[in-house]
Amino acid sequence: MNGADSLLETLRANGVTTVFANPGTSEMHFVDALDRHPDMHGVLCLFEGVATGAADGFARVTKRPAATLLHLGPGLANGWANLHNARRAHVPVLNIVGDHATYHAPLDAPLQSDISSLARALNGWYRSSQSPNDIARDAYEALRAAMGPPAVVSTLILPADASWGEVTEPATPLVVASPRHSSPDVALLAESLDALRSKRCALYVGGDATEKEHLALAQQLSHATGAKLLMETFPAIMDRGSGTANPERLIYVSEFAQAQLADVEALILLGTTEPVGFFAYPNVASRLAPPSCAIIDLAPPGVSAWEALVALSEEITVGPLVHENGAVPGRPSGALTPQSLADAVGATLPEGIIVADESNTSGTQLFGATRFAPPHQWMTLTGGSIGYGLPVALGAAMASKGRVLALESDGSMMYTLQALWTMAREELDVTVVCLSNRSYAILNFERSRVGVSVDGSTSQRMLDLDNPAIDFCALARAQGVPAVKVTTAEDLTTALERSYARPGPSFIEVELAKRPF
Amino acid sequence: MNGADSLLETLRANGVTTVFANPGTSEMHFVDALDRHPDMHGVLCLFEGVATGAADGFARVTKRPAATLLHLGPGLANGWANLHNARRAHVPVLNIVGDHATYHAPLDAPLQSDISSLARALNGWYRSSQSPNDIARDAYEALRAAMGPPAVVSTLILPADASWGEVTEPATPLVVASPRHSSPDVALLAESLDALRSKRCALYVGGDATEKEHLALAQQLSHATGAKLLMETFPAIMDRGSGTANPERLIYVSEFAQAQLADVEALILLGTTEPVGFFAYPNVASRLAPPSCAIIDLAPPGVSAWEALVALSEEITVGPLVHENGAVPGRPSGALTPQSLADAVGATLPEGIIVADESNTSGTQLFGATRFAPPHQWMTLTGGSIGYGLPVALGAAMASKGRVLALESDGSMMYTLQALWTMAREELDVTVVCLSNRSYAILNFERSRVGVSVDGSTSQRMLDLDNPAIDFCALARAQGVPAVKVTTAEDLTTALERSYARPGPSFIEVELAKRPF
Repeated sequence: MNGADSLLETLRANGVTTVFANPGTSEMHFVDALDRHPDMHGVLCLFEGVATGAADGFARVTKRPAATLLHLGPGLANGWANLHNARRAHVPVLNIVGDHATYHAPLDAPLQSDISSLARALNGWYRSSQSPNDIARDAYEALRAAMGPPAVVSTLILPADASWGEVTEPATPLVVASPRHSSPDVALLAESLDALRSKRCALYVGGDATEKEHLALAQQLSHATGAKLLMETFPAIMDRGSGTANPERLIYVSEFAQAQLADVEALILLGTTEPVGFFAYPNVASRLAPPSCAIIDLAPPGVSAWEALVALSEEITVGPLVHENGAVPGRPSGALTPQSLADAVGATLPEGIIVADESNTSGTQLFGATRFAPPHQWMTLTGGSIGYGLPVALGAAMASKGRVLALESDGSMMYTLQALWTMAREELDVTVVCLSNRSYAILNFERSRVGVSVDGSTSQRMLDLDNPAIDFCALARAQGVPAVKVTTAEDLTTALERSYARPGPSFIEVELAKRPF
Repeated sequence: MNGADSLLETLRANGVTTVFANPGTSEMHFVDALDRHPDMHGVLCLFEGVATGAADGFARVTKRPAATLLHLGPGLANGWANLHNARRAHVPVLNIVGDHATYHAPLDAPLQSDISSLARALNGWYRSSQSPNDIARDAYEALRAAMGPPAVVSTLILPADASWGEVTEPATPLVVASPRHSSPDVALLAESLDALRSKRCALYVGGDATEKEHLALAQQLSHATGAKLLMETFPAIMDRGSGTANPERLIYVSEFAQAQLADVEALILLGTTEPVGFFAYPNVASRLAPPSCAIIDLAPPGVSAWEALVALSEEITVGPLVHENGAVPGRPSGALTPQSLADAVGATLPEGIIVADESNTSGTQLFGATRFAPPHQWMTLTGGSIGYGLPVALGAAMASKGRVLALESDGSMMYTLQALWTMAREELDVTVVCLSNRSYAILNFERSRVGVSVDGSTSQRMLDLDNPAIDFCALARAQGVPAVKVTTAEDLTTALERSYARPGPSFIEVELAKRPF
């Protein structure tokens, strides 16, 4: 048994069955070992950012880590941006990064680089295994760290000689005990109860607390106490739709979020951290809660939000869950606008679908239009690093074996468009809707917010995506994904229904008016 | 004047006129300032790896830095792999990485990350400017470090408030003095002379020493002393073709390189460092020169190889440059093979063209077939991080205002295919030849070299690019680049000639037999 086999045995003993890979020479023994472990599913990705985003999506759905297989420093760097999103989603990921043989490293060969600094910048766990005998324990520790809680991104650096060398001290693989969240602090529980009884409060949910049961109990507490029920702007994955409690989502624009929080005297954090501005803006406060607001960090990531909610509800008499009534939108007609495209999605959304939302400015109406759709899950861009949507949809489809809807904007899609090829190869049930406005519309919007008002031609050219216009359907078809372009709301509605009815991936380009802002 | 204006003034005072950009919110004031500096050319790239590779190509051609504009940690990470190649090419690059406002950073907003660790891993210069008044000096120091010698990748982190804040202590921009290489060490010169007179030597050239004048003098010294003239496997940019001295290139495969060096008793380094194996392989030495060979580090990067060559030739009587005779290949016909495709390139290569070679396994015959073509320049994959070819071709075309030929392999092209869009937008004279064998053929080859022999179906699936086959022409056309697919050597020859005759980019897909190895 060589080091690569030892690694695969520890992965399998811990239920890791999927590896999203873009291998190189230094990973060949790991690739070879896959043939001896036919229950490990290797998924080839044509760019590392696809592999890491897929691992993020896989973990959001299953709460379990998938592995990535990356080629030295450049491979980890190429995957880093989507690992940043995974880190901000608080999901477990295990990176396996091949490296030069230990004795080759001092020679400073062309591909030699400081992999540890790249890994350190992910704020998780990282280590380089120095011998085949170390790999089993190192992989176990990497997985234990990844699963947390709180979950993190672990990076196991695997020198080629550790991978190909013989294990001389084989051992039974170690299995990570089920991750167990800490209990909430008793004093903070008391402070929360006191605040709920005496102050204008808001329950601020995110992370784990966006699961259906958490949201229900949070809503019951909200109704019983008069506290607002607010949700973070970018949850990793949340339960939504008919029969699910519906928290008010904090708005992305700082000034609007500040208005939502203006009269709150105590903010009780459940599954997430204090809300702050996505960016800083001149003359706008970076913290979103008013300075006088007490921030009660009751259940940050790693602490059980469920236990916190139960503990609060044992002290506060709550009524039954109040079901809001509402209907799905009717089938829209006419021109494609942010509203009509959202209605088309809302009118057709099937039960159980998982939505990967990277629709940015064109998608402002989507959340509302799907409020009363059949129960589904919704994922968002947790870390702000664009190019997350297609890879995360790929990983979620691999994990769920069900239908995923990727709502993509054109600029973001161009970051990781290679994900389409893997969707086709793996015959995944992913519907991609590409919202094309030929613009980095979010930047045209942000530009005005940071106090820049001149519409100069040079700067404008930096924010527009036309000239030449991109044929998005052609990009999809070229990678094996059937594609259709729609220009009316009726056609979008029909295209969505057809896509849901047909196995495998499909691609819909939605041509919108340019630059809504 | 705000910090962004101050930065642009220092860039302009130092002759930096091109910025390859993928901006975000934190860079909006810099983008805005471009309107006030119309002589600064902002080039939009749809992915940061395109921007950084373009800066590499620009610097290889001009020996001067271009700037990149990147969005926080994820932007730098996305550009990191091609910066690694630039670092290994020893060219100057200035990254400008926008960051959160200084007062926003401690709040750990979604896009907050450890940019410094990412920058540190590039082994160059990096600093975060903390106020608008610091920017002019920091930018000057970044440029001074970047230009070396030896040249490095500099990373200036620019917090949003340093960019938008008013400069209260304006100063005349500082200008970096012309970079001056160190003189070679006198003792090493004496040792080299002694070796050339008494031992079987090889002059080993790379870096700056692959310019025409250097190669000529090295060849004269080689003829006068009987020393071999060897060149590093992956030069950043070299002068080639008719009338140019032709060093023997060290072969990529370690065993072959070791055979080339087997009888060498002293290796004299000019412009580069000791040759080592690209990867380690079981039972193959990592150092390529024999253990008994003296390594004389006469002119490493940063030391003047030209001065070293002149000093040697003052002590050794050299004859005139010997011009080898040879002809360009005839126009090939028939099936497309590595030889016939190379002949098609060699038969048509126009004078003055710059070649960006990322042809990998399919391109083994290209170097030989272009040996006697009209004078041209050749760039290679210095750092081994694939996806360099299209971006570097883009930057080289921007710098040279002339024709560039990108020789791409299919797997590598898929890393940074977004470069095609910018080629179309900027109407650059780039001919892209995509060598499609539907395989990571290099890995099929490397796999056997690392001692893996089983041709298992799972592992093979990790190395093949078919299923689905990718329509490369469609990917090019979708981004505004006219494309043609060729299946015979005659058609490739004609397509190359047409492409050279027509302004703007064009794309040629060459369909090869699958998996030559």
